[in-house]
Amino acid sequence: MAEEQLTVGIIGCGLIGASWAALAASAGYPVHAWDPEPHARKHFPARVAAAQAQLSELGMTGKADVILVDGLQDVARDCRWIQENAPERLELKTALLAEIEAAASAETIIASSTSSLLWSDLASKLSRPAHFLLAHPFNPPHLMPLVEIYASNAGIRDRAIDFYTRLGRVPVCLKREAQGHIANRLASALWREAVNIVAEGIADVADVDRALVNGPGLRWSVIGAHMAYHLGGGAGGIAHYLQHLGPSQERRWADLGTPKLTPEVCQLLTNGIAVEAAGRSIGQLEQERDAALIARLKLRNPVSAS
Amino acid sequence: MAEEQLTVGIIGCGLIGASWAALAASAGYPVHAWDPEPHARKHFPARVAAAQAQLSELGMTGKADVILVDGLQDVARDCRWIQENAPERLELKTALLAEIEAAASAETIIASSTSSLLWSDLASKLSRPAHFLLAHPFNPPHLMPLVEIYASNAGIRDRAIDFYTRLGRVPVCLKREAQGHIANRLASALWREAVNIVAEGIADVADVDRALVNGPGLRWSVIGAHMAYHLGGGAGGIAHYLQHLGPSQERRWADLGTPKLTPEVCQLLTNGIAVEAAGRSIGQLEQERDAALIARLKLRNPVSAS
Repeated sequence: MAEEQLTVGIIGCGLIGASWAALAASAGYPVHAWDPEPHARKHFPARVAAAQAQLSELGMTGKADVILVDGLQDVARDCRWIQENAPERLELKTALLAEIEAAASAETIIASSTSSLLWSDLASKLSRPAHFLLAHPFNPPHLMPLVEIYASNAGIRDRAIDFYTRLGRVPVCLKREAQGHIANRLASALWREAVNIVAEGIADVADVDRALVNGPGLRWSVIGAHMAYHLGGGAGGIAHYLQHLGPSQERRWADLGTPKLTPEVCQLLTNGIAVEAAGRSIGQLEQERDAALIARLKLRNPVSAS
Repeated sequence: MAEEQLTVGIIGCGLIGASWAALAASAGYPVHAWDPEPHARKHFPARVAAAQAQLSELGMTGKADVILVDGLQDVARDCRWIQENAPERLELKTALLAEIEAAASAETIIASSTSSLLWSDLASKLSRPAHFLLAHPFNPPHLMPLVEIYASNAGIRDRAIDFYTRLGRVPVCLKREAQGHIANRLASALWREAVNIVAEGIADVADVDRALVNGPGLRWSVIGAHMAYHLGGGAGGIAHYLQHLGPSQERRWADLGTPKLTPEVCQLLTNGIAVEAAGRSIGQLEQERDAALIARLKLRNPVSAS
């Protein structure tokens, strides 16, 4: 079956569902979407339109129809690729996924956007687990290229790589499932030390963020962490680095912090963000973030991304 | 004393010293440089020229003289701002810094590029420690905006902020000294988990790097880690995030790995880099990195960097 003739189903029409709907429509796929919550349904069309306006700046100018349907059954009947974006609660998601599967045809592929749950837990109640996969986007999903994929079946995994590539994403596959997949494990590890630096009084929130954005963050938008140490090893590359500087890295690892999010630490973080935001609202910061991301995405030349 | 009339001294003319020399000359400051090693002296002019060519792409078109002088005494006599870039060995650096200080006038400011040593250790043998500071650049130093500063004296710290800003850098000050300053602590924390993901068989080296570059790395080139969680908290910002998702972050922290750089893990990393490099030499990868960095630096609009 050619994926380009798919109608894409969206279950859960919050920010993530709206992003997926915009991506699919801008890539030329018709979308049928459903959410049980009136609030999500109400804001969905405007969110999809706003995301599509940003995508058109990036050359994704498709205008396939996006339709809000009346029930899960309608999505399951019409769509052969269904993206689930329900809240991150295991019982809710397993019940919902079983309901989608029961209403869908046998060949339908169901993908979950889960950021924190495991494939094996989510698939535990399904009759056709091979047709179920994780496809986790990174916020904001219509701008960030990364989609992390875990599928138990190699054929379904390959179809997922093809499908998300057609949505303009960069799919990265996990060899085995892991809490937080890859990117949120990395983000969590970095943030732990970012919190520690504030808690220990080494630097303020705004200065930690400024150091990251003007230092490692900028570099990691171009080359990955492993590649950075390869280039840090000089002519001998990573083998030289590991041999000569591996022990000093292990000593540095031992010196990293293990902070707790105590009320005092939370207050430091909250106060620090107020300084960094400098009066800018969440909406204004999001607009600045998106504009800066779009400018970078137009460059499309990271070294580690090919 | 107006810093713009300074002659800048460079002690240690390897890659970092050459980067500093290029930055200073391209910002209009004459440079007097010295290195005891013939090899470093031989390659210094070409390295400075190559870095200045890249800086001119970024609008730094100054052409002040860069002179290799015959000895440390000449640098100390002529220069009122001296940047030390010797190898990262405490005894070598403390002896060298004392020698520079003894030969320099009382008002001379001496800055060390050290990435891993502490101010209090390096300053321990100096007669005028208030005039000594850490100013750590991030590799490649002439392209990466970040300079991490630690000074014991507020007046010297403020002059350092002014001086490195004139070199087109973004200075970030530590409130107290710390092993690895800010950026390398963050980089080290992230890399530990990046190594763990490979060691645990969750994903390969190239896929970890691809996830980083297309996900959190891209985002951290625009907003810092703290700000990312502020925006991840929705309308309630970081206070909402900490209240509702703080406990799940702490659980995620507990699930992060503490790998060792065993021979087996080092082999996995080295093999993985060979796949990611796909035949590209270190020099070629550096060229691709620099071109991608220059393109991003031309945008100059990160949200957390103001």
